[in-house]
Amino acid sequence: MALIVQKYGGTSVGSPERIKNVANRVAKWKAQGHDIVVVVSAMSGETNRLIALAKAVQATPDPRELDVIVSTGEQVTIGLLAMALKDIGIDARSYTGAQVRVLTDSTFTKARIQSIDDAAMRKDLNEGRVVIVAGFQGVDEEGNITTLGRGGSDTSGVALAAALKADECQIYTDVDGVYTTDPRIVPEARKLDRITFEEMLEMASLGSKILQIRSVEFAGKYKVKLRVLSSFQEDGEGTLITFEEDEKMEKAVISGIAFNRDEAKITIKGVPDKPGIAYQILGPVADANIDVDMIIQNVGEDGTTDFSFTVPRGEYAKAMGILEGVQSHIGSKSVIGDDKINKVSIVGVGMRSHCGVASTMFRTLAEEGINIQMISTSEIKISVVIDEKYLELAVRVLHKAFNLDQAA
Amino acid sequence: MALIVQKYGGTSVGSPERIKNVANRVAKWKAQGHDIVVVVSAMSGETNRLIALAKAVQATPDPRELDVIVSTGEQVTIGLLAMALKDIGIDARSYTGAQVRVLTDSTFTKARIQSIDDAAMRKDLNEGRVVIVAGFQGVDEEGNITTLGRGGSDTSGVALAAALKADECQIYTDVDGVYTTDPRIVPEARKLDRITFEEMLEMASLGSKILQIRSVEFAGKYKVKLRVLSSFQEDGEGTLITFEEDEKMEKAVISGIAFNRDEAKITIKGVPDKPGIAYQILGPVADANIDVDMIIQNVGEDGTTDFSFTVPRGEYAKAMGILEGVQSHIGSKSVIGDDKINKVSIVGVGMRSHCGVASTMFRTLAEEGINIQMISTSEIKISVVIDEKYLELAVRVLHKAFNLDQAA
Repeated sequence: MALIVQKYGGTSVGSPERIKNVANRVAKWKAQGHDIVVVVSAMSGETNRLIALAKAVQATPDPRELDVIVSTGEQVTIGLLAMALKDIGIDARSYTGAQVRVLTDSTFTKARIQSIDDAAMRKDLNEGRVVIVAGFQGVDEEGNITTLGRGGSDTSGVALAAALKADECQIYTDVDGVYTTDPRIVPEARKLDRITFEEMLEMASLGSKILQIRSVEFAGKYKVKLRVLSSFQEDGEGTLITFEEDEKMEKAVISGIAFNRDEAKITIKGVPDKPGIAYQILGPVADANIDVDMIIQNVGEDGTTDFSFTVPRGEYAKAMGILEGVQSHIGSKSVIGDDKINKVSIVGVGMRSHCGVASTMFRTLAEEGINIQMISTSEIKISVVIDEKYLELAVRVLHKAFNLDQAA
Repeated sequence: MALIVQKYGGTSVGSPERIKNVANRVAKWKAQGHDIVVVVSAMSGETNRLIALAKAVQATPDPRELDVIVSTGEQVTIGLLAMALKDIGIDARSYTGAQVRVLTDSTFTKARIQSIDDAAMRKDLNEGRVVIVAGFQGVDEEGNITTLGRGGSDTSGVALAAALKADECQIYTDVDGVYTTDPRIVPEARKLDRITFEEMLEMASLGSKILQIRSVEFAGKYKVKLRVLSSFQEDGEGTLITFEEDEKMEKAVISGIAFNRDEAKITIKGVPDKPGIAYQILGPVADANIDVDMIIQNVGEDGTTDFSFTVPRGEYAKAMGILEGVQSHIGSKSVIGDDKINKVSIVGVGMRSHCGVASTMFRTLAEEGINIQMISTSEIKISVVIDEKYLELAVRVLHKAFNLDQAA
């Protein structure tokens, strides 16, 4: 008998029928003797509906009041799921973030969890009840309602699992696990039984958007065993995200191939190579709230250097405008950009102990005539920027080159 | 400078545009130097939508969980109104029932208010903020969300006004006040400037459904000055509901004519005239949760009596069935019924000090050939049961007979 936290996203609870399905799934786990805490999102579409309503009243909604409004989405779901469980004879009780008490800071619309009171939930579990908690929300010290920001229900699930010292936190979603890459591009892509937190972090931040990245960080920090499962499949083990690298994993050199189409690159050529130059270039970009991803600066030859970085494609025009202003100021030669690029990354803890991973990657791409425009590496991933027209080809050939279609 | 509690119903906050209108109205009162606490209902249609959603999951929704779901309706409105006020430069803060702390008992879906903590609201008012409170809801001692039942937002408004010792509680609705009778039947019906609580109670319970009856009782008990106003009119004084009869009111003999179409009557003939018989008849009816309205028993002649009462029309068939069972048991002659009757009532505190009111009423109806089937009186009202086909005629001729079309 274990204590399991299950988190169901908006699609999984998107209609009364689907909520009943979730209740049946919970009942099955409960029948196996487990204690169950369920964390739910708002029904799909509901959060967007509420935000649109708020914007119809105030173009830039007041953050405190927006949280009051948006948090009702999850509040409706917890009540409905409790009813669905009671309807099939399972005792259950719902809790809003404030009722649990999920204490957060007061940063409305993107609050951070500070502590969770497990007393009420423990009492219910001891009395045989299923506990249902509204994801995505909490309450600050003054009793104001807060929300954790988009995707925050994953974080709620993991935080509750940590607070309750749960044996496992199961994230139910519309995919049945984490794949070696996107099966829409590589039909041979294989579901991974296990992946480490570090790999998952790289996969998530690189565009495999299964889990909210903050929840993965959180799980890693508090050593919560995370499992990604499909809420539309009857069985299946999903993918377990572990904090230890076990023997089996060592054998795999890389675990997956991530990619991101939402990229554009900007290069400033002939930048004087002196201290503070990176800040002078990126400071104004950051001030404009543009997220910068890869940043590359090469050693220069003639006292100048080329400085490149990538930004989300939607921010490309704005960033170019800013940089053209910066250029004259810092005395660089020119600003050039390209919004027709993609990023491809290979990810795997095996890289640490295996040589030649980078050269395999570069050789594979070269053999297909794919030019590498930028390279960036970390301990467990190598990312390259390529022309967007080669994206699918690059992912396919790399998937094959690293034998990802075969179980390790 | 006064402290005013304003309550806006679902129609008044039924769209973003209407919520902005409410904000403008609140701003106008605030500009006059008043402290304002606003109580709001859910946007029109929202409560029904939420109940339907709940019923789609559980045919008879669990009461605790239903309150969790339904209370989100008002929670959305408070956030939207706070935003609308901030958008026009008025500082405001929203409160759920739990945040205020509106403490209720634990009777889910029809909880009763036990106490209200005014500390947080006072602080906001002192700091110049408009306070916005979700009507219809509260929280019990264990922190469970409760609702006060349909129309409970009126009660919330009055209870807050009582707790804050407000100078006036303004109920904004879709009519501009209390009328002498329904203007759809009598075009000459006149808006009353004032009406006493007792009269309002009789008018409300008799079918003039402007205010929830519980809120009127509450206002009378705590001596809250209540005013009914239109939220769609720019100006207008509405109708003030007072707890003292002033000089002006003494002049009017009756204040209004109420009526109820949702009535059916049942008569048991030849009932043995002995102690306990009323209970033997009405006990089984009450056990079936049927509300009995008028009850009439005449002195009998031959040791038997006729016993009549009225029930809501929808319960008529059920009540007849029960009574036919009772009949043989108590040895009465027969049970007869009629579900084509209506009730008409004249209401006025002036009756206390004016003779001949009843005879004027009966003569007026007789002159039109309207037969009176049952009569019931209280200190400030006289009700009669008549054939439903004469309802409009009866209301019109009584309105004229008591000069209600002319200001007193």
